[in-house]
Amino acid sequence: MERVYVEKIKEAVSDEVLVQGWIHKILDFGKFGFIHLRDKTGIIQLVVGKELLKGLRLEMSLEVVGTKVANEKALGGIELQVKELKVLGKTYYDKLPITVNERKKTAHLETELDYRYISLRNPKTRAAFKVQQEIVTAFRNYLLDKNFSEIHTPKIIGTGTEGGSEMFTVNYFERRAFLAQSPQFYKQMMVGAGFERVFEIAPAYRAELHNTYRHLNEYISLDLELGFIKDENDIMDIEEGFMRYLFQHLRKTCSKELQMYDVNLPEKVEIPRIPLAEAHRILLEKYGKKSPVGNIDAEGEELFAKYIKEKYDSDFVFLTAYPVAKRPMYAMPDENGMTKSFDLIYKGLEITTGGQRIHDYEMLKENIIKFGFNPDDYGFYLESFRYGMPPHGGLAIGLERITMKILNLSNIRETTLLPRDMKRLEP
Amino acid sequence: MERVYVEKIKEAVSDEVLVQGWIHKILDFGKFGFIHLRDKTGIIQLVVGKELLKGLRLEMSLEVVGTKVANEKALGGIELQVKELKVLGKTYYDKLPITVNERKKTAHLETELDYRYISLRNPKTRAAFKVQQEIVTAFRNYLLDKNFSEIHTPKIIGTGTEGGSEMFTVNYFERRAFLAQSPQFYKQMMVGAGFERVFEIAPAYRAELHNTYRHLNEYISLDLELGFIKDENDIMDIEEGFMRYLFQHLRKTCSKELQMYDVNLPEKVEIPRIPLAEAHRILLEKYGKKSPVGNIDAEGEELFAKYIKEKYDSDFVFLTAYPVAKRPMYAMPDENGMTKSFDLIYKGLEITTGGQRIHDYEMLKENIIKFGFNPDDYGFYLESFRYGMPPHGGLAIGLERITMKILNLSNIRETTLLPRDMKRLEP
Repeated sequence: MERVYVEKIKEAVSDEVLVQGWIHKILDFGKFGFIHLRDKTGIIQLVVGKELLKGLRLEMSLEVVGTKVANEKALGGIELQVKELKVLGKTYYDKLPITVNERKKTAHLETELDYRYISLRNPKTRAAFKVQQEIVTAFRNYLLDKNFSEIHTPKIIGTGTEGGSEMFTVNYFERRAFLAQSPQFYKQMMVGAGFERVFEIAPAYRAELHNTYRHLNEYISLDLELGFIKDENDIMDIEEGFMRYLFQHLRKTCSKELQMYDVNLPEKVEIPRIPLAEAHRILLEKYGKKSPVGNIDAEGEELFAKYIKEKYDSDFVFLTAYPVAKRPMYAMPDENGMTKSFDLIYKGLEITTGGQRIHDYEMLKENIIKFGFNPDDYGFYLESFRYGMPPHGGLAIGLERITMKILNLSNIRETTLLPRDMKRLEP
Repeated sequence: MERVYVEKIKEAVSDEVLVQGWIHKILDFGKFGFIHLRDKTGIIQLVVGKELLKGLRLEMSLEVVGTKVANEKALGGIELQVKELKVLGKTYYDKLPITVNERKKTAHLETELDYRYISLRNPKTRAAFKVQQEIVTAFRNYLLDKNFSEIHTPKIIGTGTEGGSEMFTVNYFERRAFLAQSPQFYKQMMVGAGFERVFEIAPAYRAELHNTYRHLNEYISLDLELGFIKDENDIMDIEEGFMRYLFQHLRKTCSKELQMYDVNLPEKVEIPRIPLAEAHRILLEKYGKKSPVGNIDAEGEELFAKYIKEKYDSDFVFLTAYPVAKRPMYAMPDENGMTKSFDLIYKGLEITTGGQRIHDYEMLKENIIKFGFNPDDYGFYLESFRYGMPPHGGLAIGLERITMKILNLSNIRETTLLPRDMKRLEP
């Protein structure tokens, strides 16, 4: 007999079905009982006789054969009269460390993370990762359709030139190596190597001494880079198009999950592009808020997001034209002494940094010197610009950040199966 | 004017088209010349007047506007009469370190890897990665269709219990951490946490002191794990089905690339499943070849592959029932004192290890002790088995190995954009 998933029971042709899953709830009425059986797709009520109920405990895994019976009062209007019941996975506990079967979570986030193998059994907790999976799927499908290639670049790297102090070091045989902060150099290299348009979905590492609601030391970076662009607007066009595509995709694939989180995604996605200096002016004039040079602080980001929401009815805003001093040495300068770069702010949080890069070998070399670095330290990276590198640029989206903001969660750890932060290396 | 990719020029509605790419070849006849322009999708012949030819060098990147003209002698039967030509990316070299425009490669593999940003410009070299991309796409689509969830688990881990000596160590703030050899423990945990069926496509790390044609120290592992199985045959069924699906998918998406490598993928994929002891007997009887206990060495793998090819007309064979001593402590024992585990050999090379795992807490704990380890060292992993873990198992496929074997390449580094081995950390 083939297993039927809970969400497919109603449409199953046979009245007798085999289901598998975990015991979510037990209601014992003496002569018989109800069991709520939970699988990957949903929860079904089982009607179980006295004998079969014996010895059953919450969270055991079961295989059950039963007959479908309509019951208005049961979840989904249907229940199973159980004929056979087999325990597939036994339990060994005195008390569950976390309650799985209540809507309102009672455990502290740190406890949830300590017991991830239990806390994820809560359908709502797990639903965040269905949304996250569909964000990844949308990113990939959107880009494959636009002629991008998916690449895999190494995370162990030989030099720390992209920002040494915030990198983890690895003991690589007899040498010291680093964990890559981003695939920046390699994705540029692959554009030049003939792939033209590339993306990568992979871990990135930041050895930052931050322990906040929005920082992780290991996270998934959605990276893209493309050649033969006119300027940074081509890159923003790609990202704006992606956000539109993403929201459509999520409405289609995650309606149940979005409902669990009370999220309505807007039909319209039109993202204003506002130079940083202009944003500074608005913040000062409208809110009396002074900004640090070349940046917007967390408070400013939130105020500015509010302004954009009121004026443009948009949860997103591109901040453009960041000053040279605040961007990496490879950022392409613009006509006004700024750079052709941008950040994307979503609901008050930066979720993307991107921009056009310098593609001319001599210009890049000069810029490295201007920034006070030594071109010799940029070995293969700089060398790769000698051979007709076309104009190009790209961006990176933090997967956990965008998941957190779409679902209006308050801590990025809720969108990470097994977070890594300054204090947490386990489970 | 919108850019047209080379492979789409023929079907472009307008006679005048804009193309972009790199100079693959220059043929200068004095009064005019031919340029072969290479983009991501192909190569087109440009007819260029004397004036525009001046200063052009191999591998510069160009933007060109030209008119389509039929020419039987040109590649693809069409060429462009160039009206406008703009250099987008200049070159700065005396001599190209690697020749891109000859079919036969002349450079040593090590030189190719040193100059990856040039060697990948060779369409055949790059084609291997199109095939690799489609292997990844097929793996993902096949599993998503079977209700698997895509997961992301951390690569920095706190303990080295899965095989300490072959792991890279990371300096994680004030602690010592490791790079994960595989997502083994975490994918099992996620099956138990309610995802039931999971897969991950991510880097894996082995600090092995091997420098061979088939070893990498960082590689991409295609991992899957599924719950509610009957036995290890369910897992082999999944893999056999995948191989069938994969070959169909590659024939559909990579016909050009497979042709470049002279590869014909079989229509039929039926994989014999042969116990290791039986394979040993056959090797001894047919070839007089003795095997090491509980294993087959490289020579044996090749001989046995030959036997299977002759007897079953199959490039694949599952070797099953490995002895307990040769498998990890979590391998499920079978009725004969062996384990419910298997390897998949493809064209004489092991590309997969898989099997059913122990799911009962007490049995796992006992097995850890039997193996001479301390259960306390298995902290959260062992703990996660207390809560109704269902019968489950899984496997891992080495992405670079399967790519290498499909394309009949002789070194795994040819299927890695930027390989990491004992000697190579750059580029």
